[in-house]
Amino acid sequence: MSPFHIQVRVYYEDTDLGGVVYYANYLRFFERARSEWLRSLGVNQQRMAAVQGVGFVVVRAEIDFRAAARLDDLLTVSVKPAEVKRAYLWLDQEVRLEDGRPCAAARIQVACVRHKDMKPQPLSEELTARISA
Amino acid sequence: MSPFHIQVRVYYEDTDLGGVVYYANYLRFFERARSEWLRSLGVNQQRMAAVQGVGFVVVRAEIDFRAAARLDDLLTVSVKPAEVKRAYLWLDQEVRLEDGRPCAAARIQVACVRHKDMKPQPLSEELTARISA
Amino acid sequence: MSPFHIQVRVYYEDTDLGGVVYYANYLRFFERARSEWLRSLGVNQQRMAAVQGVGFVVVRAEIDFRAAARLDDLLTVSVKPAEVKRAYLWLDQEVRLEDGRPCAAARIQVACVRHKDMKPQPLSEELTARISA
Amino acid sequence: MSPFHIQVRVYYEDTDLGGVVYYANYLRFFERARSEWLRSLGVNQQRMAAVQGVGFVVVRAEIDFRAAARLDDLLTVSVKPAEVKRAYLWLDQEVRLEDGRPCAAARIQVACVRHKDMKPQPLSEELTARISA
Repeated sequence: MSPFHIQVRVYYEDTDLGGVVYYANYLRFFERARSEWLRSLGVNQQRMAAVQGVGFVVVRAEIDFRAAARLDDLLTVSVKPAEVKRAYLWLDQEVRLEDGRPCAAARIQVACVRHKDMKPQPLSEELTARISA
Repeated sequence: MSPFHIQVRVYYEDTDLGGVVYYANYLRFFERARSEWLRSLGVNQQRMAAVQGVGFVVVRAEIDFRAAARLDDLLTVSVKPAEVKRAYLWLDQEVRLEDGRPCAAARIQVACVRHKDMKPQPLSEELTARISA
Repeated sequence: MSPFHIQVRVYYEDTDLGGVVYYANYLRFFERARSEWLRSLGVNQQRMAAVQGVGFVVVRAEIDFRAAARLDDLLTVSVKPAEVKRAYLWLDQEVRLEDGRPCAAARIQVACVRHKDMKPQPLSEELTARISA
Repeated sequence: MSPFHIQVRVYYEDTDLGGVVYYANYLRFFERARSEWLRSLGVNQQRMAAVQGVGFVVVRAEIDFRAAARLDDLLTVSVKPAEVKRAYLWLDQEVRLEDGRPCAAARIQVACVRHKDMKPQPLSEELTARISA
């Protein structure tokens, strides 16, 4: 079964003088994929932030940087839940080139927190059920 | 009289595959200089945002991009108030290379707004007085 | 006739503590639209950079920032050539919200340059013809 | 013995709608510190890239995100070599708030590569000696 994924085009803004995607930008790509994955599960992050004052934050990230992505590349960025706990998730994420070679692979721990004081909030039962479905 | 200025080092994050600073990043440098200039005038933007829910936003920017800045360059970024109105300012800003050549020159209109609805807020008399001093 | 346009989703990376898109990021969105517009005209920027060592750079930008874009907004970013010269172009670009309200409107001068020394290069006759078509 | 460190101010560009530093931006801060550390060891990255076509790239990063940094915070970003091999390094890096609390702690593997094909290049004996000193 293919994990959830989005496509991301590499633009000038993403590259550095080495001619390749700047390393921190893979974390932006990972976040775009997580946001679309949450949207696909019915999560409205804008409303969560505005109404409840909560949001998801990355607690830990382990990233391997492999093949370099370059301008105009059309990347596939995936999200696969690996572990779901009461107040956090572990996700497996990958960025791949069009020929399937991996650019970056990550294991990312995401927690739900209250923006005001960054205190952890339990995931709703509904969301937990949808993620585990 | 030399205008207010800060120094900004060019890092990998700022460059693109052309080997030069990516054009949007000059706007980040301009904002850093405006923030330090506001701090030098006694403005606490963190408190303004957290307590009053207001902040400065750019309403219009006219920018000329000239000499290219490159990795490791130590840039000088200046701010000079050109016009102070009830609810906005016009600022002249420049980014210069170490040899004095201009990289970017801008005329920037900044307004004070309430974040919630982006409604303009009048500048305090105290701030207006300090800017005009 | 509707001008060339792309859609851009607003992610966490694009916002600032005001809850809105950080002003410099509209210039990233403008560049994404320009890159897709060039691609639609048959221009391969990756090959231009790697083989010929040339690329397009922004020489001047005049931007009005209007309605604020927020997380999850799906923006439409357009490109319309306004003037085509031997070695540069003037483009009209806009970012609009889903309800059609403009977030940012810009007039942008783009030149073709050699990356090594940033010297201007004439646009190819073929490209000039395609843009003017 | 205090490890090498620099200070980094948090600006609007670094924050997201949660009011805190966006997670990928800590990797930009880590890179700024690595670049200044390399400069302090006599490494000229601009010349390396322009003349030799080589540069340092991150191969793996393990990052724990802890206390959130906010606008105006003056962060201390450190670099401490943990392991020096023929063609790569492991570095320990931290970002701390002014009161000493850690915002982010990372273990980062950096390799020297040729930009053209991303092939690894051995570190010069001179650099290896300086890092180990």
